[in-house]
Amino acid sequence: MFPKYDVIVVGAGHAGCEAAAAAANMGSKVLLITMNMQTIAQMSCNPAMGGVAKGQIVREVDALGGQSGLVSDRTMIQFRMLNRSKGPAMWSPRCQSDRMLFANEWRAILESTPNVDFWQDTVREILIKDNRVQGVKTSLGLEIASSAVVLTNGTFLNGLIHIGEKNFGGGRTGEKAATGLTEQLSALGFEAGRMKTGTPPRVDGRSLDYSRMEEQPGDEQPGKFSYKDTAPLLKQRSCWITYTNDKVHEVLRTGFDKSPMFSGRIKGLGPRYCPSVEDKINRFADKDRHQIFVEPEGWNTVEVYVNGFSTSLPEDVQYKALKEIPGFENVRMFRPGYAIEYDFFPPTQLKLTLETQRVANLFFAGQINGTTGYEEAACQGLMAGMNAHQNVHEKDAVILKRSEAYIGVLIDDLVNKGTEEPYRMFTSRAEYRTLLRQDNADIRLTPKGHALGLADAERLTNVAKKVAQTDELIQELMQAKVQPEEVNDRLEDWTTAPIREKTSLYQLLKRPQLSMEQIKVLQPRFSDWLGTLKPEAIEQAEIHVKYDSYIEKERLMVEKMGRMEDLMIIQNFNYDGVAALSFEGREKLKRARPQTIGQASRISGVSPSDISVLMIYLGR
Amino acid sequence: MFPKYDVIVVGAGHAGCEAAAAAANMGSKVLLITMNMQTIAQMSCNPAMGGVAKGQIVREVDALGGQSGLVSDRTMIQFRMLNRSKGPAMWSPRCQSDRMLFANEWRAILESTPNVDFWQDTVREILIKDNRVQGVKTSLGLEIASSAVVLTNGTFLNGLIHIGEKNFGGGRTGEKAATGLTEQLSALGFEAGRMKTGTPPRVDGRSLDYSRMEEQPGDEQPGKFSYKDTAPLLKQRSCWITYTNDKVHEVLRTGFDKSPMFSGRIKGLGPRYCPSVEDKINRFADKDRHQIFVEPEGWNTVEVYVNGFSTSLPEDVQYKALKEIPGFENVRMFRPGYAIEYDFFPPTQLKLTLETQRVANLFFAGQINGTTGYEEAACQGLMAGMNAHQNVHEKDAVILKRSEAYIGVLIDDLVNKGTEEPYRMFTSRAEYRTLLRQDNADIRLTPKGHALGLADAERLTNVAKKVAQTDELIQELMQAKVQPEEVNDRLEDWTTAPIREKTSLYQLLKRPQLSMEQIKVLQPRFSDWLGTLKPEAIEQAEIHVKYDSYIEKERLMVEKMGRMEDLMIIQNFNYDGVAALSFEGREKLKRARPQTIGQASRISGVSPSDISVLMIYLGR
Repeated sequence: MFPKYDVIVVGAGHAGCEAAAAAANMGSKVLLITMNMQTIAQMSCNPAMGGVAKGQIVREVDALGGQSGLVSDRTMIQFRMLNRSKGPAMWSPRCQSDRMLFANEWRAILESTPNVDFWQDTVREILIKDNRVQGVKTSLGLEIASSAVVLTNGTFLNGLIHIGEKNFGGGRTGEKAATGLTEQLSALGFEAGRMKTGTPPRVDGRSLDYSRMEEQPGDEQPGKFSYKDTAPLLKQRSCWITYTNDKVHEVLRTGFDKSPMFSGRIKGLGPRYCPSVEDKINRFADKDRHQIFVEPEGWNTVEVYVNGFSTSLPEDVQYKALKEIPGFENVRMFRPGYAIEYDFFPPTQLKLTLETQRVANLFFAGQINGTTGYEEAACQGLMAGMNAHQNVHEKDAVILKRSEAYIGVLIDDLVNKGTEEPYRMFTSRAEYRTLLRQDNADIRLTPKGHALGLADAERLTNVAKKVAQTDELIQELMQAKVQPEEVNDRLEDWTTAPIREKTSLYQLLKRPQLSMEQIKVLQPRFSDWLGTLKPEAIEQAEIHVKYDSYIEKERLMVEKMGRMEDLMIIQNFNYDGVAALSFEGREKLKRARPQTIGQASRISGVSPSDISVLMIYLGR
Repeated sequence: MFPKYDVIVVGAGHAGCEAAAAAANMGSKVLLITMNMQTIAQMSCNPAMGGVAKGQIVREVDALGGQSGLVSDRTMIQFRMLNRSKGPAMWSPRCQSDRMLFANEWRAILESTPNVDFWQDTVREILIKDNRVQGVKTSLGLEIASSAVVLTNGTFLNGLIHIGEKNFGGGRTGEKAATGLTEQLSALGFEAGRMKTGTPPRVDGRSLDYSRMEEQPGDEQPGKFSYKDTAPLLKQRSCWITYTNDKVHEVLRTGFDKSPMFSGRIKGLGPRYCPSVEDKINRFADKDRHQIFVEPEGWNTVEVYVNGFSTSLPEDVQYKALKEIPGFENVRMFRPGYAIEYDFFPPTQLKLTLETQRVANLFFAGQINGTTGYEEAACQGLMAGMNAHQNVHEKDAVILKRSEAYIGVLIDDLVNKGTEEPYRMFTSRAEYRTLLRQDNADIRLTPKGHALGLADAERLTNVAKKVAQTDELIQELMQAKVQPEEVNDRLEDWTTAPIREKTSLYQLLKRPQLSMEQIKVLQPRFSDWLGTLKPEAIEQAEIHVKYDSYIEKERLMVEKMGRMEDLMIIQNFNYDGVAALSFEGREKLKRARPQTIGQASRISGVSPSDISVLMIYLGR
């Protein structure tokens, strides 16, 4: 019934869709298996992509030739660049999406990818021989052969939904759970764990009083995620901000005795950085209010997402508490919030390619690895899909360094440190975040994506043009000089110090009070010329002029660390023979078997002194 | 958490959506409860609306002020008027729909209906007191109060899906079944039964060779369903026709020993007129081929529906058989076909309002009544929603006569005759089908729909204009006369007899060889004037001129039968006191308790002589 596939992808969420598209676009014959072809690429939680650190990931996915950026651009209803007032390392693109369009667009993209086949079914078992993937077995009893399998099961593995004291099986509300895989993998020796996540109630926008909330419109000049030439957003929908208060908290507390979180009925670990509202008022008892973002679910729908109000309290408590929020006095609920527990496999069981250490050509991506977030899932799917293709075709593994991409940070953290709670990306996790900016993901990654056969030629041309124009502009800024008498009046107007001698525009642009807009005024001939350049090149040049010293400092650090980072540890290094290692360090090293000193240094429990000891033994 | 609703509608398929919209638009406060808000108005089976007799129903639903016609018009990808070569009683509009757009459009309509609230949950129990509905209880344990409840559970009640020797619970593949309601209603004394339906495999359009099939394009001048001014279809997608053959049948037969139909594993009764392909080759063993319609599922998707190939044979047999169909040599399947068994309640337990006889204000609509088809479901939903509203507001019941609408025929058949297999509408079921045409549903029903507060004023104005123009045109045709010398050459060209004296255009148009197109040629001054009339008025006039005698004959028959039809039978008539009744007739009459002689005459098992006996007793 089926040919033998190169890669079978199980699950069609953010991770599965990226994995299927990546492997297929690189040339693998791919089968995407989903429980329900009508629910491909559902946004299970909030209708938004990007955000702090996450937006950078979406741009990285795009730069490598993934699809999430394109899908987001084509289906967004609002765009905001977060943290504009901070340094460019913090700038983070974020959009609100039309939930239905997002899913439809992903499906359309997959359908137009010639190498992707589809099959609606549930995978119950991985077929394995000699510790190597042979294919999958489905709940219809079908055996489908493949060289590699990527598991992206999301919250479906033994999914258990909690609302107050009730619980029932399901991968999302109204949908079935998936069973069998955890049991099989555990029997094979995989360690499995249980995690928990949650989602807020959805409400009827017609029942809200927006006049009691604060409007949050999109950016006046909306940006986008993809480095490709997607169309700019011409109109946008606003979000709204409101707050909980004492009364809301009081009502929520009346449900605490029925909370599945506080009663211990939920065993899985929840995301500390994306807590439920009951968690927030419990942990931050001194805070008298918490922010609520009221987010439309699409262009036309009246359904609204109550961001910040994730909860698994009984639905009547949810309702009564919502009614106390300003603007929600007459709220009507569409669906209650709920918590969901699901199985995951601690990611320390993976290689840096996201292949499992135990079974060759079996890859895991997304929540199955203990992460949370669409963007975290998407980038893992992309990397797993790429590496599955590379493995099957006996090509080199694709591993991004921590200094190259947030994606590198994420996977390195997962594999080397593991995670005790749903792992979410933050800028603080990246030690080289000044290098890993949203504006330069294409420069960092598109050449690599293109060399791998994933990013197309158009992308590479775009990057080359952007780099060339950036360089040219910086040169021009260095050469163009102004005299004090030409500019000092203006500088005074802008409350920045006058110059005393002929000064380059480059030097002036370095001043925090001045931006390219002022440079255009000082040197009008620039204005016309700038109009012929790509806006991204201008932004890039401005960032380089202003932050060059920071960027350079980090670059030197990367080089220095790189030398240590890449120091290889021989495959069967005998840690037991190194008496000076700490007990914990030795055990962790034996378990993780890092390939380099850099990896070893990031294993939790391996101390700096353990690293020093190791380096001595390795000949330093 | 919830106000008390006038009407709760359970289920959001074709029946549930129409019921919710109708009751709400008439002024009831409605709650629509669905298991999954992402799957409102799914087309579970083929992506098409209308067809023979069914298209007439969609137009009737539209004429009354329902939504299915509007949704169909806005989301269709192809339109064809079937049976154009036959008399106008047989003309039947049919469209292919974009499956995703259809669902999205329905949801958008419901969301923009102010009186419709939504709740995502599963109803487990009807709350009843003193044989009267009080509300529902959900699987979350919520009790929601309402004056009336409309059940539209489709195939979800104890749904059991069969593919070959495998079976599993579910309301559709990939979705959960619903439990609890059948058990409760049975305990209350409702008779429940089991029915079966099926669906074909979905395949990848990219894997088909259309050059080996016959193209079936849409009409050159595509029509539409709604009498409102929906936009005409500017481009269309074609369907394709191919055929099974001996080889296909041979492969299918290899699976017969594993067929859940033939093994007796399926207990429910299937639709005889919409049989599975294995049924067709079994029952019509002498036919060496069966037609297959290859239908696209939407504007952009590559998914294709294999109409005519419904099957529950094992998926590998489905696949091997498909491959033998011309054009399917390299077919790739997306999802296998399957059969589904589900609970229904024999509709003889209903009143003509679709209210149950046993529980006041409990209404059933759609497959729960043993019907099949989107259109049959939609019209029942509409009528149940209207009558639920009327009941709650102590207004008159809305019952359409068999001479007024296919909807009347359908409900009268169901309630008085019941059904042993999934009931589907045919033109042959309507004894007055010359009256119940697709072109005059607005004339028949919009005044009623408007009087009930459902069809809006615009609809009524449209009808009035159409009727006035039709009348005017017929008058003109009668008055405009032509001389033999003016037209006889032309008539000869058109191979119709010359005239011998001055003759009206009316008389000429009666000729089967001539249509309004020729009349325009004979009398050019008509041409300009016709351009100012509504096309529907011209069509209407032409039908009246040509078929007046047939129409008139049927109208007289209706009048004659109407006198008998409406003869009332007193509420507690003692059938046991009428010795001359047949044993079977008496039992059926006692059970059904018909309100009129007309109803009594249509009860299966009640003979014409029983009716004569009754009429004598009733004073005739």
